[in-house]
Amino acid sequence: MVLAPVADAADRDGRAGHVVRATTHPAYANMVGPFGGITAATVVNGIQQHPDVLGEPLSLTINYVAPIAYGEWDLELDPVRTNRTNQHWVFTISQEGDAVATGTAVFAVVRDTWADIEATPPQAPPADEVEPSDFVDFIEWAKQYDKRFVVGGLSEDGSDDSTSTLWLRDEPARPIDFPALASMTDCFFPRIFLRHGAYMPAGTISLTVYFHATSGELAAHGTDHVLATARGVRFGHGHFDQYGQIWSGDTLLATTHQLVYYKDPA
Amino acid sequence: MVLAPVADAADRDGRAGHVVRATTHPAYANMVGPFGGITAATVVNGIQQHPDVLGEPLSLTINYVAPIAYGEWDLELDPVRTNRTNQHWVFTISQEGDAVATGTAVFAVVRDTWADIEATPPQAPPADEVEPSDFVDFIEWAKQYDKRFVVGGLSEDGSDDSTSTLWLRDEPARPIDFPALASMTDCFFPRIFLRHGAYMPAGTISLTVYFHATSGELAAHGTDHVLATARGVRFGHGHFDQYGQIWSGDTLLATTHQLVYYKDPA
Repeated sequence: MVLAPVADAADRDGRAGHVVRATTHPAYANMVGPFGGITAATVVNGIQQHPDVLGEPLSLTINYVAPIAYGEWDLELDPVRTNRTNQHWVFTISQEGDAVATGTAVFAVVRDTWADIEATPPQAPPADEVEPSDFVDFIEWAKQYDKRFVVGGLSEDGSDDSTSTLWLRDEPARPIDFPALASMTDCFFPRIFLRHGAYMPAGTISLTVYFHATSGELAAHGTDHVLATARGVRFGHGHFDQYGQIWSGDTLLATTHQLVYYKDPA
Repeated sequence: MVLAPVADAADRDGRAGHVVRATTHPAYANMVGPFGGITAATVVNGIQQHPDVLGEPLSLTINYVAPIAYGEWDLELDPVRTNRTNQHWVFTISQEGDAVATGTAVFAVVRDTWADIEATPPQAPPADEVEPSDFVDFIEWAKQYDKRFVVGGLSEDGSDDSTSTLWLRDEPARPIDFPALASMTDCFFPRIFLRHGAYMPAGTISLTVYFHATSGELAAHGTDHVLATARGVRFGHGHFDQYGQIWSGDTLLATTHQLVYYKDPA
């Protein structure tokens, strides 16, 4: 994605709007339109580059409203409210004047407080002892990640358990940052594929990411693999949820929750 | 809350806007401003009453941008896009022209597909074998719920585990509906209270609810208690996450993820 501010706009309340133009990149193509993770990453990057940004990413919710066509899109950013320690954003992605994604984000100042991580990362052998695997050739975005499945890789067998746990990093390796982390939370293929052992029509409707990591923790992580785990809990009426965690050693970098559309195979 | 349409507005793209006026109710007062769950419930109700609504609630994300003052507030609803099987909403709650909450929602037509619930509800004795408990007297909203903690009730002891599991229903009992379910996902007191065994300044910043239940399942549930469970995973830098599930017997009605602000006690 290429980001460039294109214009200022005034929203309905007369507040100053801010529009950034992005261009989809063929390396992150998915089956229909661009990979949702890279779209989320571009929103995070767009807010980080906004002149009025406060602090670091804390939460993001993006709703995929309609298929995004390959080419240019406009990201309208509205810093709705800046409080003492956090800042609330509303955004819309549009193409040809139609909304294709909507969402909200919160950024916050890093404050020093009492802290604890209650959960522990899933059991896994070291990344270099796990074989990397590829998705099918027509999923371009997946080639931009090194993926080493500990459990729940794609297979034709299907499974009663939708859990996937994998070592994951950008390919080629690069230092992790907030946009990269946002994208990684969407790197799990749809859980319905795992349950059925088959590709099926499926796509994320809504993705939420909570960024627990600070920029300092991301810098300390560097270019290593993260350990990513996700599971769906209820499948029904054409939708399922997915809850996931992204770990750097014993440090929980992000939690994520997403809702996915699916269609039974004919 | 009392809901009444007050005006139509035109948004920046010239689409027809729709504004509903609500009034806070003292029975749902929290420590500062109204209980966030009842605000979320009112948004769900407002969309359900919109003349163009499609299907049933599927997901909701609400960001609490600023304290809501007791009194009237305006809910602006924008049905951004209606697809064949789902409908995307953007909303803003404002008081005196300032945004106090923002968010998005998805509604969807109930489709018949392959289905499975992978998780199981937490272990719990029947609701009538668990003693009801009260929060402190100044938390008004909590009096509108019958709460029977199986684990993780409020105590002065503190805990290393932030899990709460409780039987929960409206008090007095009433049939559950989507707004009631939305509100129940915010009925867990802040996990930081449980960790420290003390009340502390804390408040939800962002709440996401995925409604797995259909209206038929809610009707079948009726006025019984739901079994609700939630846990925080990482506490740090003044924020923690909370992931929760709401069960009706073996049927998972909703999953929820929220991000909460906290301040260390002085």
